[in-house]
This record gives sequence, structure tokens and C-alpha cells, in this order.
Amino acid sequence: MIVKLKRNPDENELEKLMNFLREQDVSIEETTGERYTVLSLIGDTSSIDEKLIGRFDIVDKVIRIEEPFTKANKKLHPESYVVDVDGVKIGAGNFCVIAGPCSVESEEQIFEIARSVKKSGANLLRGGAFKPRTSPYAFQGLGKKGIDLLLQAKKETGLPIVTEIMDLSDLDYFSDVDMLQVGARNMQNYSLLKELGHSKKPILLKRGLSATYNEWIMSAEYIMTGGNDNVILCERGIRTFESYTRNTLDVSAIPAMKELSQLPIIVDPSHASGKYSFVQPLSLASTAAGCDGLMIEVHNDPENALSDGPQSVTCERFRTIMKKVGKLRECIL
Amino acid sequence: MIVKLKRNPDENELEKLMNFLREQDVSIEETTGERYTVLSLIGDTSSIDEKLIGRFDIVDKVIRIEEPFTKANKKLHPESYVVDVDGVKIGAGNFCVIAGPCSVESEEQIFEIARSVKKSGANLLRGGAFKPRTSPYAFQGLGKKGIDLLLQAKKETGLPIVTEIMDLSDLDYFSDVDMLQVGARNMQNYSLLKELGHSKKPILLKRGLSATYNEWIMSAEYIMTGGNDNVILCERGIRTFESYTRNTLDVSAIPAMKELSQLPIIVDPSHASGKYSFVQPLSLASTAAGCDGLMIEVHNDPENALSDGPQSVTCERFRTIMKKVGKLRECIL
Amino acid sequence: MIVKLKRNPDENELEKLMNFLREQDVSIEETTGERYTVLSLIGDTSSIDEKLIGRFDIVDKVIRIEEPFTKANKKLHPESYVVDVDGVKIGAGNFCVIAGPCSVESEEQIFEIARSVKKSGANLLRGGAFKPRTSPYAFQGLGKKGIDLLLQAKKETGLPIVTEIMDLSDLDYFSDVDMLQVGARNMQNYSLLKELGHSKKPILLKRGLSATYNEWIMSAEYIMTGGNDNVILCERGIRTFESYTRNTLDVSAIPAMKELSQLPIIVDPSHASGKYSFVQPLSLASTAAGCDGLMIEVHNDPENALSDGPQSVTCERFRTIMKKVGKLRECIL
Amino acid sequence: MIVKLKRNPDENELEKLMNFLREQDVSIEETTGERYTVLSLIGDTSSIDEKLIGRFDIVDKVIRIEEPFTKANKKLHPESYVVDVDGVKIGAGNFCVIAGPCSVESEEQIFEIARSVKKSGANLLRGGAFKPRTSPYAFQGLGKKGIDLLLQAKKETGLPIVTEIMDLSDLDYFSDVDMLQVGARNMQNYSLLKELGHSKKPILLKRGLSATYNEWIMSAEYIMTGGNDNVILCERGIRTFESYTRNTLDVSAIPAMKELSQLPIIVDPSHASGKYSFVQPLSLASTAAGCDGLMIEVHNDPENALSDGPQSVTCERFRTIMKKVGKLRECIL
Repeated sequence: MIVKLKRNPDENELEKLMNFLREQDVSIEETTGERYTVLSLIGDTSSIDEKLIGRFDIVDKVIRIEEPFTKANKKLHPESYVVDVDGVKIGAGNFCVIAGPCSVESEEQIFEIARSVKKSGANLLRGGAFKPRTSPYAFQGLGKKGIDLLLQAKKETGLPIVTEIMDLSDLDYFSDVDMLQVGARNMQNYSLLKELGHSKKPILLKRGLSATYNEWIMSAEYIMTGGNDNVILCERGIRTFESYTRNTLDVSAIPAMKELSQLPIIVDPSHASGKYSFVQPLSLASTAAGCDGLMIEVHNDPENALSDGPQSVTCERFRTIMKKVGKLRECIL
Repeated sequence: MIVKLKRNPDENELEKLMNFLREQDVSIEETTGERYTVLSLIGDTSSIDEKLIGRFDIVDKVIRIEEPFTKANKKLHPESYVVDVDGVKIGAGNFCVIAGPCSVESEEQIFEIARSVKKSGANLLRGGAFKPRTSPYAFQGLGKKGIDLLLQAKKETGLPIVTEIMDLSDLDYFSDVDMLQVGARNMQNYSLLKELGHSKKPILLKRGLSATYNEWIMSAEYIMTGGNDNVILCERGIRTFESYTRNTLDVSAIPAMKELSQLPIIVDPSHASGKYSFVQPLSLASTAAGCDGLMIEVHNDPENALSDGPQSVTCERFRTIMKKVGKLRECIL
Repeated sequence: MIVKLKRNPDENELEKLMNFLREQDVSIEETTGERYTVLSLIGDTSSIDEKLIGRFDIVDKVIRIEEPFTKANKKLHPESYVVDVDGVKIGAGNFCVIAGPCSVESEEQIFEIARSVKKSGANLLRGGAFKPRTSPYAFQGLGKKGIDLLLQAKKETGLPIVTEIMDLSDLDYFSDVDMLQVGARNMQNYSLLKELGHSKKPILLKRGLSATYNEWIMSAEYIMTGGNDNVILCERGIRTFESYTRNTLDVSAIPAMKELSQLPIIVDPSHASGKYSFVQPLSLASTAAGCDGLMIEVHNDPENALSDGPQSVTCERFRTIMKKVGKLRECIL
Repeated sequence: MIVKLKRNPDENELEKLMNFLREQDVSIEETTGERYTVLSLIGDTSSIDEKLIGRFDIVDKVIRIEEPFTKANKKLHPESYVVDVDGVKIGAGNFCVIAGPCSVESEEQIFEIARSVKKSGANLLRGGAFKPRTSPYAFQGLGKKGIDLLLQAKKETGLPIVTEIMDLSDLDYFSDVDMLQVGARNMQNYSLLKELGHSKKPILLKRGLSATYNEWIMSAEYIMTGGNDNVILCERGIRTFESYTRNTLDVSAIPAMKELSQLPIIVDPSHASGKYSFVQPLSLASTAAGCDGLMIEVHNDPENALSDGPQSVTCERFRTIMKKVGKLRECIL
């Protein structure tokens, strides 16, 4: 961490600052030039709050030159993590496809989709039970009943299930769910993240709509600090000035996460585009860029879906995508 | 709401769409030109999920030309709302200043600040007890003890108190708090918003870091749908490409909210800039633009503040700002 | 185009508006509901300036439901265009790779790189002669001498050349250049675009740093309006909140442009990331998403490059990328 | 400037780097810790291209801790500049208001507006002659004839004139224009900036739609490097996710520029909002925040304006705004 001082700092103030820094468990090197003085803090600075340094009046700038995260940091954990979701492995070469409807709507619907995506080669079943919706007037999901239907579909097909948790108070309903999803709008719901850190369940952590890589990994760090290392990152598009697509897929997040963190990263091309016609090209692009898996919204009847119909692919189209993704993976391996 | 159809829509598909639309409580006008057909849905469309229309394959575009909110809509509620926070009125010409430290740190600290800001003319006392922090390694607030200290400071000074609620499970601690703040990162925590709608407490709803006006008002609508009309909007800066300031104050949000909604709007220049030297110019700018109040971080000893020191003004500087804001208000009235 | 009127419009004002609209070459349908009136303008609205309608006081909103472009519009020109750059075809299945240094630095440098990329399979040679640099203190390019060196390298290798034009006053120097590049910062330099429309030269039109798809295509429309249809779009990353990469590659621009326009689209993974280690994954991702070509910065000695060293790949790495891209293309065809 | 090295740098590579750094006119301090080594470059680093350092493989990060600009840097030029536009002074307490139509349309129009704004107290007359328009089908301005009309209006009223230059090739037409405006889309048209640096004319430099403060000042630096110090910065709103306003006024740019640069800064509330009803609140807000002037679009007949009607205020409304701004300035002085 670099601390740049203002010109001609007051001696007493400097002494106060140095005393504060000495209490942090780092060594300090001072470089004084004609124009200004720079302090370099050498050591593990991840637990230092740079704002606590910036508050000193004689400090001009504080610049972190090491990442603020340690548990999710590849430099300190060079080996890629593998997350096991009830037998399905993700990461370090293990590629997985999560498929299913945006929302669980009925027994018939979830069973038909589950059977079909399993046949096409999906590894996990997704489906929303508690739905975050911008409008209070929109369909809010079946709640606990949705989870029950997912569990029944798992019984029938053997596919482990993934569904979103929106609030801690619902946690009891999720005891049999195989992987809990933290949605984009909850990426910085720190109370939720902390509590999930006390669980051992795999967590699918979606990137916030405007989150930087650092913020995203810091949210993973919140979970891991509690003792739960089973975190999978999910890129689902970010907000940009473009409105033709619902969000903008940041495909560079894949090589970036591979450089920064040892956690697996998967991609959700359905939310990233909001357009079913984009799901195939974005799935292929993400696979070619080296992601560890995909999460795709599939519906047996997209026109009558109660939520996110325009971004869901049909079961037939999903089968085609799976074939193309499979062929691509063979070719790039 | 305007529904633009693709060229030469299939008759059967069109019939299915028309049947669906007829079930919505609106009248439908069809305009057919050489190139395409447009359906205009006339009536209250706020409860229609446009995605449910967009899912029909023959639909090219769905464009909402009325706002998706009703309870927070000035067109339907032309008179400005006044929110009463334990006797302090906000809105419709009632200007209020909320002041206090970012975090409650100790009895001495909160008492000293409370007395000072009261003397300078503040109407409400703020202070964080549960703190949302990007890093799990940063100071997380005193929790329940922080609220107790705020309540004691209220007893002494008479200033009603405002503090942030981060999670529903903490709700019991807030029973004596006068106004509950929903933070920027929780603006779309729908479980929290819904629950707060069942309360009668005034809610200070901060704008999300990248939220549009529509999304912000929709979050107010979530609270109001539950029956709680005591919502105050708080502009606190949005994320832009500029990093010199922590966020970018969107001063246009003031006239915009005055056009769109009947709810009061206040401004937080401290978070909006992250720089104490900007608090005065931004307070004056916001006041000149017509906001209903300000929320300013004040600390008796900013250099030793446990959080957000760089954006806190001293008690002395706060007094100066209060005088200048007061003078400005007299001049523009 | 949809024109929504304010409630109870003044009769005289309405008559003035209708007179204005009747002068535009479109038919007008009026839909009046209980709450407001909507006018639908049916016909070719591309030449109508919606602001000229919005100026009428009785108009609440003007919404364009057709694209504002016609010459670059796939709906009107369904067949994909092929652009011929001195014998090298791009578009409609013709894939091309443009390679070369960020800046031309010396005869030795450009010859060595040109020979090497040709051997690896590149189709066109790029190299900057006039360089747009954020700082006036940074290397500004060799100017005319740079173009001369490119032309010599073409003579030796047979590779047609591409280089950026920054200002109309330099146009004479470009008479033998095969394709002129319009840089991101000049995407809305309308004087330049208009002049290039009077040429027949192929134009490589880079997307502006924060440009929407519509704005980008409108810039192509400027060129095409002058009579020059030889436009190739180049996605080179957009500005987002992420600073780990220099820009953020918008891979969805590929399927989007394929839906909206008949013009070829290529991708520049070097500028899109600013990191040489990202060039391979992003090249593969873009190819998998269906782009018509790539533009890659290659340097014989990236460490000593006078500009953009960090994003340049070596000649060896370029060869590997070409092999992988080739294999991928075979597999997805 | 801080150069952070990768762990265990190769000795030979380090020697190469050190040789390179020694050629730059700075002194170098090396700080070696357990984890990594940091080099601090002390001295005037403004002319060092940090990318030329980042290209060395052993370099992990290069962080500039001093501003990259010198001529426009307040630290080096602490006294505020005053720009004289044919007798009208701007900056250092000299407040000016520039008013006039978006586009010059006719003699009658520009004369009527010029007379009216002069009477209301405006100091300078603006009007577009060469107009940058997103669509090639929109009104492009009267060109040279527009400038002639402005000059006639100056003759009649005595108001110095400001108009936008879009391309170097038009420069001859601007010989009698008092201040040349560089538009937002041309803020990084470096050929234009360089040429204007060789002039002595005052330049009004608008901020680019997504430009950071640094980039904006660097564009001023381009002009000043040529020898022309008469630069006025103009904040005109930036692009954000909000579409209710045309752009988002960044009112913090005012105190920011006052901290960073000695150049005057004015605000254009008309383009910043795109809504005439916002011009008054944003003018007051900007004045309260301490700007050196305003540029306001005024039209005698906004409904029939050929461009930007919705954001123009009438001559009457402008008079009211001038009175309120005047009263506000008296109160805050």
C-alpha cells in the first residue's frame, strides 16, 4: 500500500500517522523527494482499511497496490478450486451446465423441462421460487411450493437443484437445496453473505449489475471468511448504456477471474442478453473464452412463461446449443 | 402502452395475443399501416408486466408510455406529501437537515456531535449502527449498542434519530428508531422493502448506485404498496466513470423527482462526493435546486473517525454550512 | 413513430402540430383514450427529426419504434454485404485477420512484423502512422513517413494495408492506403465521416467508447449517405466501471449487428482488453460468436514498443492464436 | 510515479528497466519488502508515458500519483486565470452568461434573441452555425452564413460571439469569431486541439460525454501546449444510465476543477438536461456551487426552433433566470 503525503507535512501530524501505521502489522519504507514523500507499507495489507489512513490530514492519497482479498486470491491459492454440488463437480476442467426455467410455475412445467434438459445433457436443474422483481405488481414466484416442486423434479431426474435465496428469513426452506444462488441485486447484501458463510452449501454468487471485479470477489470473500469455500462466481451481464440487450455480457470476466481468483466461474447468457436468439452465440463465446460452465434459462413454452419469456430458449433449441457447446469444447481442449 | 407487431403477423397468433390483452383491464386500439401494425393499450397499465406481452412471437416491441408506478406518481397525487418524523416535518416547503457521524462509535462521540449539530440548527440526528462495508475486514458498526447510544442522545437533545437497517432479522432493535434508512446497496432488497411497507415508520430510501429514476421510485412503490406512505427519497450520488469523487451527485434528480413524484427528496452530499471539501458547495447547489433537506456527515474528530473520515465535516464547518444554507434559502424563497 | 400528447391538448396547438405532421411524408392515425391521445406516424420516418415534434408544447413524448437508419438497415437490405479490400473479401462468410503493430516505428520493425504475420496467415497489415493520444506528451506517430513504410511493407508482402486517419487535412497522404480506419474518438467526427462518404475506399469504423449500437450505425449511415457502402464495423470495447481491463469487450455486439445491419463486423481484442494475455481468449470468444474477422496488435518486441506494448502479442503468440482460431472456425462451420 | 515489480524479478530484466528509467529525468527510490519491490519515481513525471514502463515484463503495475498535466495544473499555477473575450472577462470572480439559440436560423431570429438576451444582462451571444448531429438527416446548420449573421448581431448589440468549430478546414470562417467552441464529441479530436493551440483565440472546451476530469484537462493541456492559455472549461452533462434527462449534470465538476486547475469553468444547463424546465434549477445549483458562468440556450420561439427546441427557454423565462441568478450571487458573495 502506498501512502503519498502532502507537501511539507507537519511534524506532529506525521508522528501521529507513523504511530498509527506502526500498529498495523506491516513494515514501512519512507521515500522523500523534492516534491513529496511516499510511504510504502510492505506486508499483508488486506486487513487495513485505507480510509483509516486517508483520514489523516497530511495524507494526499492512499493507493492499494495489492488486492484487498486473500481467501479468494489466486496468488495465495494458486490451485483452482473444485466445487462439488451433490456429486456434480465444477471447476478445474469440470464443465457444468445448469438449465431450467426462470420461475417454477407448476409441477407439469418443471417436470417436463427437467426431463428434457437432463436428456440433452444438463448437469443441474435451476428454477426460481422466490423472485426479485423490479415491480411489486409482477409475479413474485411460488415461494416454498416452488422449492418443493424442484425437489420432486430432482427425485425424478437425479439432477441436483439450484435456486435463489432472497432473504435470510427464508433460510429454513432451503435445507435440501443443493446450491443457493445469491442474485445480482443481493451481491452486496452483507448480512446474507455472512450467514451463508456459516453454511457449507455451495453458493452461486452472481455479479452485481454495476459491480467491479474487486467488489464481486470481496463479496465472495465475505462468504469465505465465514468458513465456506464453496463459492462459484456467475457473470450475468453488467449495465451499460446499450438498451438493445437487457445487460451487456462481460466475456473478459472469464480470463480476468482466472487470473485473479481460484474460484470457478460460469456464465448466464440468458440474463446477460435478455434475448433468446443471443443465448447460442453467447454460450459459444463464453465456452471459447474458458468458462467453467453455463446457466441457461429453458422453458417448454416460452410464450406462456410467467417471467422472462423473451430470454428463455425452448427445449429443442437447448438441445442444439448443448451439441454445439460440446463440439466446441472437444475442439479447444 | 404501445405494442408494435412484426410484419404480417400470423392470424392465429394475433388472436392469441388479442385474447391475452383483452383480459387486462384496458381498451385496445389497432393502427395498421403499410409497414406494420401498432396496438395502443389505453387505461391503467401499471399492473401489466410488459414482458408477458413481449413473449408473444409476433410482438416486435412493447413500449410503456406511462410510468409503471401509481402510488408514488405525482400525476395521480398532485399534492406534495409531508412526512412527519416524530414531530419534524419534511416536504412541501418544510426543509430539514439530518446530521451526525457515519458510525456511532462511543457515548462521548455521539453526545458531543448531537449537542453540537443541534446547536447549529440540525433537525434530526443520524448515525450508523449496522454498517454495510465492501470489505469483511472493515469496521462493521456497534450494532444494537449503537442504536441504544442514539436513543440516549435523542433523550438528551430531543433530536429524532435516523439509522440504517440492513436486514429484516434486526427489525426488533429498531422499534424506537424514528426513521429507518434503506441503504443504496439494499434499494432493491425487495424482502426488506415489503416488510417496511407493513410498518408506519418513516423510511429514508437511498438511491441505488446505478439505479434509474424509475427503479428508485418503483422501490418506493414497493413500500407504499404495503400501506406505508411515509417515504423520503435520498439522492446520494451515482456511480460514473469519474473516480476523483467517490460518487457523482445527480443534482437533476431534485427537479426530476419534483416532476415525477409527490414524495419529498433530500440530498446526501457527503456520500455523493466522499470529500469533506465538497460538502458545502454541494449542499448549496442542492438547496438552490429545490431539495427538501440535506443529510450531512459530521464528526467531532474526523481524523479519528472509524469510518468515512474523509467525507465528514467538523462541527465547526457544519455550523458554517448551516448558516450559508439558511441564508441561501431566505434569498431564493 | 409514436407521439403521445399531454392531456386535454389545446385545439389550436393540436391543429398546428397536425399541420406540421402532414408535411412529413407519413400517414397519421389518432387513438384517443380516457387519459391521453396517441398519434401513430406510419411510413418512412427515418428522415424525421423527432426533436422537431417534441418541441410542440402539447406533446408529452415522442417514441421512435423504427430504427433511425435506412442504408445500414438489414430489414431493408437483408443480404450481408461483402467489402473488398484490394482483393481481400470481408463479410458474408469471408473471415479476415488484420494484424500489425499499434504504431509503425521503423522500417525494420514493420517489415519483420509484416513478414511474420503474413506467414501466420494474416490477410491485412495494420499500423498506426497518425496516433490519437490522450497526452500531448506521448508519442504521436511517424505521420506520413509511417504510411510510406506501410506501403513498402505491402510491396514486399502483398498484404493490403489499414491505417487510421485522424483529420481531413491529412487525406492526401492516404491515397494509396487500402482501408481507412476511423478511430473510436472520431466516431462522431461528422465532418470526417461525410468526406469519407465521398470516397470509395473501404472504411473501418470503430465503435466510440460509450456509443450505443444506434449511434454507431448512424455514423456508418453518415458515410453511406455520401455514396460509400464499403463500411466495416469494428467492436473495440466500451468504457465501463471496470478498470482491470482497459475497456470491456461487448461480445454481444456481434449478434446484435448481425440482426440490425448488413455490414460486416470485426473485433479488436487488443484495445478491448489492453492486456496481451486476454487476446487469445477474446479472439476465440469473438470467433465463436460469429464475427467476420479480427484485428490484432502484434509486435516483434512488445517490451520496446513505442505505444501500447502491454496489449501487443508477440509474433509467436500470434501464430498460436491463428492456429486456434482456424481450428475453432472449422469446428463451428 | 510508483512502479510495482512482480515477485523475484529477473536481474537482467531489472537492469534493462533501471536503464530505461534513468533516462527519464527523475530520481528513483527502491523499496524492497518480503513480497515485492516498489520503485518510486520522484520529480516531474508528466512527460513520462506510463505505458512505456508497463511494457517491461517484470513490471506488475504502474501507478501515477501526480496529475499527468502541468500547464493546466493549479498546484503549479495557483492563481486563477482570467480569460478575456473581446473585453468580457471570465474567471477569478468574473461571472459571465452566454446566451442564444442552439442554431442560427435567420436574421430575424438571431437579432431578436440577441437584443433580448442583452437587455436581460447576458454578456456573450452564442449560436450554432456548423452543427454536429447524430443523424445525417437532421438540420446541419447554416454554415458560413450562420457566422455572418452572428457577426451582424454583434455589430448591433455589442455582444461578443461564441460558436462551435467542427473541423479544421472551416477555420478561415472563424477569423472574426470571439470565442471558438470545441464540442463534446470533438473533445478528443487532437488534430483540432493542436491547431487551436497555435491561435490566441479564447477556446470554450466542452467536456466529452463520458470523459473523466483527467481526460478533459488533458485536452485543455493539448491546447495550452501549443501556447494558447485562453481556455475555458464547460461542463455540459455526462452520459449515465438515466434517460429521463438527456445527460446528467455533474455539478461536482465545479469544485473539482477549482481544486485541480486554474482555468475558469462554466456550466451549460441546457444540454446537461435537455429540458427547458430544468434550466432554472440547474442554473441556480451551478451558481451556488461556484461556477464562473453559464451558457444557456434561448429561443424567441422554441416550438419552431430547428434544433434543440425542448431544451431552449423563452426570452421571458431567461430574464427571470437572470434575475434569480443575480440575486443568488449577491447572497452568496
